[in-house]
Amino acid sequence: MQFSNRISNMDFSPIRKLSKFAKETEKRGIKVYHLNIGQPDVKTPDTFFEGVTNYNENIVKYCDSQGIDSLIESFIQSLSDSNIYFDKDELMITHGGSEAIQFALMAICDPGDEVISPEPFYSNYSSFAKIAGAEIVPVETKIENEFHLPGEDLIESKITNRTKCILISNPCNPTGTVYSYEELEMLARIAKKYDLFIISDEVYRQFIFDNISYTSCMHLSDILDRVILVDSISKHYSACGARIGLVASKNKELMHNILKLCQARLCVSTIEQFAASNLINTMNSYITDVKMQYKKRRDIMYTAMSNIPGVVCSKPEGAFYMLAKLPVDDSDKFARWLLEDFSYNNHTLMFAPASGFYATRGLGKNEARFSYCTSIEDIKNSMIILENALEKYNKISKVKILDLAEQ
Amino acid sequence: MQFSNRISNMDFSPIRKLSKFAKETEKRGIKVYHLNIGQPDVKTPDTFFEGVTNYNENIVKYCDSQGIDSLIESFIQSLSDSNIYFDKDELMITHGGSEAIQFALMAICDPGDEVISPEPFYSNYSSFAKIAGAEIVPVETKIENEFHLPGEDLIESKITNRTKCILISNPCNPTGTVYSYEELEMLARIAKKYDLFIISDEVYRQFIFDNISYTSCMHLSDILDRVILVDSISKHYSACGARIGLVASKNKELMHNILKLCQARLCVSTIEQFAASNLINTMNSYITDVKMQYKKRRDIMYTAMSNIPGVVCSKPEGAFYMLAKLPVDDSDKFARWLLEDFSYNNHTLMFAPASGFYATRGLGKNEARFSYCTSIEDIKNSMIILENALEKYNKISKVKILDLAEQ
Repeated sequence: MQFSNRISNMDFSPIRKLSKFAKETEKRGIKVYHLNIGQPDVKTPDTFFEGVTNYNENIVKYCDSQGIDSLIESFIQSLSDSNIYFDKDELMITHGGSEAIQFALMAICDPGDEVISPEPFYSNYSSFAKIAGAEIVPVETKIENEFHLPGEDLIESKITNRTKCILISNPCNPTGTVYSYEELEMLARIAKKYDLFIISDEVYRQFIFDNISYTSCMHLSDILDRVILVDSISKHYSACGARIGLVASKNKELMHNILKLCQARLCVSTIEQFAASNLINTMNSYITDVKMQYKKRRDIMYTAMSNIPGVVCSKPEGAFYMLAKLPVDDSDKFARWLLEDFSYNNHTLMFAPASGFYATRGLGKNEARFSYCTSIEDIKNSMIILENALEKYNKISKVKILDLAEQ
Repeated sequence: MQFSNRISNMDFSPIRKLSKFAKETEKRGIKVYHLNIGQPDVKTPDTFFEGVTNYNENIVKYCDSQGIDSLIESFIQSLSDSNIYFDKDELMITHGGSEAIQFALMAICDPGDEVISPEPFYSNYSSFAKIAGAEIVPVETKIENEFHLPGEDLIESKITNRTKCILISNPCNPTGTVYSYEELEMLARIAKKYDLFIISDEVYRQFIFDNISYTSCMHLSDILDRVILVDSISKHYSACGARIGLVASKNKELMHNILKLCQARLCVSTIEQFAASNLINTMNSYITDVKMQYKKRRDIMYTAMSNIPGVVCSKPEGAFYMLAKLPVDDSDKFARWLLEDFSYNNHTLMFAPASGFYATRGLGKNEARFSYCTSIEDIKNSMIILENALEKYNKISKVKILDLAEQ
């Protein structure tokens, strides 16, 4: 019995693949700081749990494939606060932002089709593309340029007759980069010129720092029929486990087609939808407060990281990740070593090795993504651990090299 | 901008596509009996809601991509009651049985591959196959033979070098047929001979009537590495909206690969998983009672349906659906007419036209699936409505034919 080429070509998540090693480490009594995953330590709003309690049906029934009305309406309202306007038939509730991206790709890509995406990109984009039979064609962005987009010519040079869309996250996971109005206008020009869709994953849109202004692809009025917006409650409301997302587009024909995918999987979990629809009653201060916390944490991580000898990083403008270049040959190996062979005062650290965020083989090999959605104390401790670990790791490496030289 | 061929070739669910017309009908003040959908009217067990209340975390976190331990263990325990034995690394919690089937097909089929399935089959099988780029190759079963499988030769004649698996539901949705030990042994022989997987969707396995014995594909000891079992809490516990399913196989390499798909979508809704894991504490009598109710309802629907002039039906052995041949040319048109042009004492009826359950064009055109997971009173009323509607519909059709003849 053979497995599909699709599944054989897929990779395990670079964010989750080390979890089993971390479990072993923890079993040995060592505390692991999990900076690998974007799981905020922030409390989910009470409104969510009130929404759960308010569910007073005695049968947990299927709901509409599109989603429950109250949740659709609350998304419409919350998006309108960001000057993004949708009618009811232009959006579908999905099982997290993940399903939203998967559905968008399924609806526009056939096997062999190509998806342009700035790299490094959120590693699961590659999985979603492979599931749809499509391929990510990366456009390299560089740490020296704070991961902003390269010139129009370079992006255009990647386009072929199989290119169907441009896929971005903005603010960007894993880099924290926030694309400017000019950068998005450039993408809009390209999309029009080559007749492409833009899938814009804006699940971190509430977390943009330093008064940098937020441009949604939905603010580019002349390409609205080309934009597929992905949103989610996961990060904004620290409700990652609820799996409540959204796919939306002013292209009604596209949404009508996506409804087929929604109907095939029947509906999204009913109780989580009820709970999520009550988030609209969360005080405005909730997100403002959370954003303030993330900014503080970013500043602490950035300062500490910048001071570690040999580490290169750029200051994230949004989201809650930092992508750093480490003074190691292979961050995958270093990550395993941290879990299996190192501890500092009985503590160690886990991060997401960055090679999984690149499509170009060889890129990102000495880079790593660190989440700062954890407590300030944990961030401070993690940075001390990282500095000590790098020092020890590089001493050992040097010894090994000397050993080899002597042989 | 073009959509994918995949999405263009997909159909809307035959079970759900008439919902918008039904909404219009209801707006006009007409009560619609929804026999189209397998949404039980049975109360979800209290244990589920206690499970919801027991969730006392203050952050709704991502959980493990495989599923939460307590839910995995409760599935292992409940399957062992049916003499089906799995280890922990042989199963993954999925977003309903739907995602389980989708993942199984994704893991074994590439674009152009073929999936053998007895038709009529659950209509979404066709969608899941198309999403994976594969095609259902149907093996016709007939109402005269109570939708049991045809001979080995006929099934073998459908197999090509692109055939990857056999996909069945047992008990069967939409026919209610329960496959015998001998039928499943035949499929096992074929699977071994042609090196195929068998995806066995057993989400109705608790609802088998008249002392007919239940054979799971997991009882066929010499093909256990070829069987992919799909289960779900949706029907057993009347918790369709929870979207908690299971994909399981003794083929550990397969499950290891399916974990990639699980990781790509991160996890299944956390709170619904917690709630579902408490279902293990439901009294045994719950399912026995529900099964008794379904049997009574089946008997009532079958007796009434058999007595309607021109209707042909076979007595379902399990699940809660009946597939009947109606004395009409096109059950799709008749279904629309029931919603748009007919009422009986201000009531009307909705069913699922059966053409969507067939892959062979033209088959099932005068057939329809009726769910009997609703109250006895509703079933009785629906059958009266159906009889009256058929009489009126056929009178009108005759008049139309006469009119045409006179022109």
